[in-house]
Amino acid sequence: MEFTGLNAYLLTPLRDGRPDPGALERLAGRAVHAGVDAVAVLGSTGVGAYLGGADRAETVRRAVAAAGPVPVLAGVSALRTEDAVRHAEDAAAAGAAGLLLSAMTYQPLTEDEVVGLFADVGAATGLPVVLYDNPTTTHVAMTERMYTRVAAAAPVHDVKIPGRSEDDEAATRARVGRIRAALPPGTGVGISGDAVATAGLLAGCDAWHSVLGGTLPRTAASLTRDAVAADEALRDRARDATARLEPLWAMMRAHGSLRVMAAVAAHLGLADVDCLPRPLWPLAAGERGRCATIVTELGLD
Amino acid sequence: MEFTGLNAYLLTPLRDGRPDPGALERLAGRAVHAGVDAVAVLGSTGVGAYLGGADRAETVRRAVAAAGPVPVLAGVSALRTEDAVRHAEDAAAAGAAGLLLSAMTYQPLTEDEVVGLFADVGAATGLPVVLYDNPTTTHVAMTERMYTRVAAAAPVHDVKIPGRSEDDEAATRARVGRIRAALPPGTGVGISGDAVATAGLLAGCDAWHSVLGGTLPRTAASLTRDAVAADEALRDRARDATARLEPLWAMMRAHGSLRVMAAVAAHLGLADVDCLPRPLWPLAAGERGRCATIVTELGLD
Repeated sequence: MEFTGLNAYLLTPLRDGRPDPGALERLAGRAVHAGVDAVAVLGSTGVGAYLGGADRAETVRRAVAAAGPVPVLAGVSALRTEDAVRHAEDAAAAGAAGLLLSAMTYQPLTEDEVVGLFADVGAATGLPVVLYDNPTTTHVAMTERMYTRVAAAAPVHDVKIPGRSEDDEAATRARVGRIRAALPPGTGVGISGDAVATAGLLAGCDAWHSVLGGTLPRTAASLTRDAVAADEALRDRARDATARLEPLWAMMRAHGSLRVMAAVAAHLGLADVDCLPRPLWPLAAGERGRCATIVTELGLD
Repeated sequence: MEFTGLNAYLLTPLRDGRPDPGALERLAGRAVHAGVDAVAVLGSTGVGAYLGGADRAETVRRAVAAAGPVPVLAGVSALRTEDAVRHAEDAAAAGAAGLLLSAMTYQPLTEDEVVGLFADVGAATGLPVVLYDNPTTTHVAMTERMYTRVAAAAPVHDVKIPGRSEDDEAATRARVGRIRAALPPGTGVGISGDAVATAGLLAGCDAWHSVLGGTLPRTAASLTRDAVAADEALRDRARDATARLEPLWAMMRAHGSLRVMAAVAAHLGLADVDCLPRPLWPLAAGERGRCATIVTELGLD
């Protein structure tokens, strides 16, 4: 277990198609100031899948410098194993504390191929791996058996599971229990999917892998502190806070969390409006206005 | 309409992780000798998604040289628009006759983003574009409205539609009719999905975008000639021939056509057994033996 608490997933805002180092440093600085437990770069929110090796290596270097004592988790996923291995080696050289690895696909992969990918990339460096189960982007349906096989083949210290909007706290608790039982003792289980992260933390997840935390880290840090507290009043406050954020979750469901966070970052002056890699486009003006209104009305930061 | 008849999709066999030029030339030579109408490289079968720009450019150059007078269609799809544009420019410089472009995704794309991708890549060269609708690998559900919008925004001369195993000849004919009605007059409609390609040709498709044709071009060429004939006896022979190939279609359904064609190419001495980019693995020995038996028993070449 390595990456507990609030892991803040930073955007990698682009300018003229290349990572904007100033914007990355502003985002990292805000996250550190808010007291997040780790920052993650080059995940789905960090558009790692769209960046080449040099841009990726430079992004990890700058994040490590900007994050100071806060550990940096680096996304290294790639369609081809040799590319992911190279990204892992570059991330290790740049000072990353861990690797974030998903089973990106073009051709649908067999279970053996998924296990082989994690084994090959896991063997490339001495860094702990977060197994990133992201069915929305990878279209791989990871089973608990696959978690077990991957954890036996690679240095998986943590598993990032997808939240399920249909699960309530009790269902999430049962699911997390099953997943823990399938993993070696001591392996961390973190939740993703911001709208359901509070339920995950309340259900005993070790970490929130948070898109929100990358751009609105104080909001996410406050929510995390309350949700992991022993005090039931604080836990109720976390439930209320996540319910109040429903307008933001609704925007994320409609447009994808990446586009919404990019709009929020632009509204706050942290990145350019047009900061995503084509073919991704920024939200239209009306939708960006809606994001700005939500941030202002709910007092998010 | 540019790419009619039999378009043979070549493997890009690897050796030590890099394209094996001898293997590519052998495959191209066989296809030309069998009389295919075009060869396609760097599609899904050509593992374009797994190759960097230099490997792709070199593959197109070698295919153009080996194909002689037969036109070469080059896959240029990439997650990022700027990479697809670069691949398109390289393919044009290498002498490709057309571009094969799909809406590869990591983040799910909006309809506007898909249209924008085709517009941007289509504007990069003067080459005709084949809109490659491949939901299995892209996870984009292209609608007839999207075909229309893309064809209005980019130089789409042909659309490669996915075959549907649940459709019979009559259903395929109705579907192809709807798609033609949605496209500008003169736009070609080609079928993919080898097991249902005969039904597509019999239903009036202009082309078969054929995985089979890349490795077993004589078998595919014979099937194509019969299926597009006016003579009903020849058309019946095509129906019978595709039914006889069912053991091969079954292997493709179970393991993916890429892995099966790689096994067949290795059996025929055209490529190494381990010729796919990791994380993809060759079929296990038993499954490779099954492929070899099918090729031998059915007399395929």
